[in-house]
Amino acid sequence: MIVTITPNLALDVTYEVTELRPGETNRVDAVHARAGGKGVNVARVLRSLGHDVLVLGLAGGPTGDAVRMELEASGLAHDLVPSAGETRRTVTVVAGGEATMLGEPGPAVAPDEWAALEERVPDADVLVISGSLPPGVDGEAVARLTARLSARGLPVIVDASGEALLRAAPYAWAVKPNAEELAETTGTGDPVAGARMLGAPSVVVSLGADGLLAVTPDGVHRAPPPRRVSGNPTGAGDAVVAALAAGLVAGGAVSWPRLLTDAAALSAAAVLAPLAGSFDRSAYEEFRVRRPSSPDKGRDAAGA
Amino acid sequence: MIVTITPNLALDVTYEVTELRPGETNRVDAVHARAGGKGVNVARVLRSLGHDVLVLGLAGGPTGDAVRMELEASGLAHDLVPSAGETRRTVTVVAGGEATMLGEPGPAVAPDEWAALEERVPDADVLVISGSLPPGVDGEAVARLTARLSARGLPVIVDASGEALLRAAPYAWAVKPNAEELAETTGTGDPVAGARMLGAPSVVVSLGADGLLAVTPDGVHRAPPPRRVSGNPTGAGDAVVAALAAGLVAGGAVSWPRLLTDAAALSAAAVLAPLAGSFDRSAYEEFRVRRPSSPDKGRDAAGA
Repeated sequence: MIVTITPNLALDVTYEVTELRPGETNRVDAVHARAGGKGVNVARVLRSLGHDVLVLGLAGGPTGDAVRMELEASGLAHDLVPSAGETRRTVTVVAGGEATMLGEPGPAVAPDEWAALEERVPDADVLVISGSLPPGVDGEAVARLTARLSARGLPVIVDASGEALLRAAPYAWAVKPNAEELAETTGTGDPVAGARMLGAPSVVVSLGADGLLAVTPDGVHRAPPPRRVSGNPTGAGDAVVAALAAGLVAGGAVSWPRLLTDAAALSAAAVLAPLAGSFDRSAYEEFRVRRPSSPDKGRDAAGA
Repeated sequence: MIVTITPNLALDVTYEVTELRPGETNRVDAVHARAGGKGVNVARVLRSLGHDVLVLGLAGGPTGDAVRMELEASGLAHDLVPSAGETRRTVTVVAGGEATMLGEPGPAVAPDEWAALEERVPDADVLVISGSLPPGVDGEAVARLTARLSARGLPVIVDASGEALLRAAPYAWAVKPNAEELAETTGTGDPVAGARMLGAPSVVVSLGADGLLAVTPDGVHRAPPPRRVSGNPTGAGDAVVAALAAGLVAGGAVSWPRLLTDAAALSAAAVLAPLAGSFDRSAYEEFRVRRPSSPDKGRDAAGA
């Protein structure tokens, strides 16, 4: 089983409008709502790949109920700690191909609520901690949780930024920042140097159009995107994390070149799907068997 | 007791943002949510004036729960029929004084849900039916409900537009369109002629900056706004309806000049308050005692 922990769960709402006219009254033509937050997206991808997953997080108020109901409807097993504060929403207004996102800050999490979440983490093949932190939870809390789980012998993949990335890195099996997050956190624009500064056993960096970079115990590896793709980049990084977790759960010795190629394939397939947490299955099947012959081929493509 | 029926209840959410940047990710600084829909606004104003009120409507899903909880918190008695569809939301993004509204269409109401709502209407001193209609409820349904309540000897005030206004008017004690709704419904820009076409015993028309007009069994009356006010016009019409209901519940012979002057005062005081359903109490106290000496004084002011 793969367990994903989403510190700042959300209900991701999409409003379709013909045109967004600021300062006016806009009629919403259609409303879609899904449970969201990066850990949920990772779980969705893994579930589609046939893995056993469990979504952990905190949920409160009527929006928390809506998150629970949507996870049920999506067939995603979950164990959500009730929180006093109401779960946040994001509203994305889609008009003529342009997406305007409005993100609520989310409720402050009380120390006992976070402690209850920590207590609920079961033994698992792989654990993922992914996404932004709500008010009341700091990087130190994420590092402490990562350290506790590692001490139980559980491999943890952390997708975070800033303080959480920096502090959790030494205790994680791997961390996955994107290039921008890594540069902001370490102060260097060189991703290999930045990855080494984190002190994590393995660091996978998503470089956007340049694919993936991994700085690991057996060296530095790169995977270009399988081909240039355009679409929805939200969730591409979550697909990378899902591929890493899936590779780890498969057991056996980790082959980084293979893991990265698969992650780049899944990430590019996620860009081709309209919603975060989804991927284009046939594109993925096509991409994952097409091993690039050299790291320099296809460098102009986009994906992870 | 005054009962307000809101066919298309909503949760009115306000997002405060520093600046609304279309096509980008916008951080919401603060979130406010209130039960909404015109009938709820009318009930809120009446409650503030010290009246016994009961809010009737349909509510479903987690957003319906949020509406119930907010009505409780606001001290507004309610009897909401559970609906299969989830209650709609409106999201108003407020940035630097500019308000951008996004209105969800709301769920379709099933015939048995509407029938259950009709069954729940208790005897009351005054009934108000106010606001837009959800999918599945047409003007004919509103007219039938108005006729049934009138047949029970209950005075009904209807604030609606189009088909609902046209068909319910003959059965209502009074209807309250604004000038634009009246013109669209009757096809004439002359509000006195339009009001007469509706065939209601009394028609109160809000004329915006020109105040109020009433076409009644004892003649045509006008009330200018007490003074020029600027602020939030949303809810000004609901304050007019609240004033009419309050005047009617007071008993005794209806004095239309007095009723209209009070309605114009409450409406102007509502413009001065930031949220629909609220009014500036001290302004109202000041405005309601200031009887204009002639209908032509203060005609340049804005209010209802």
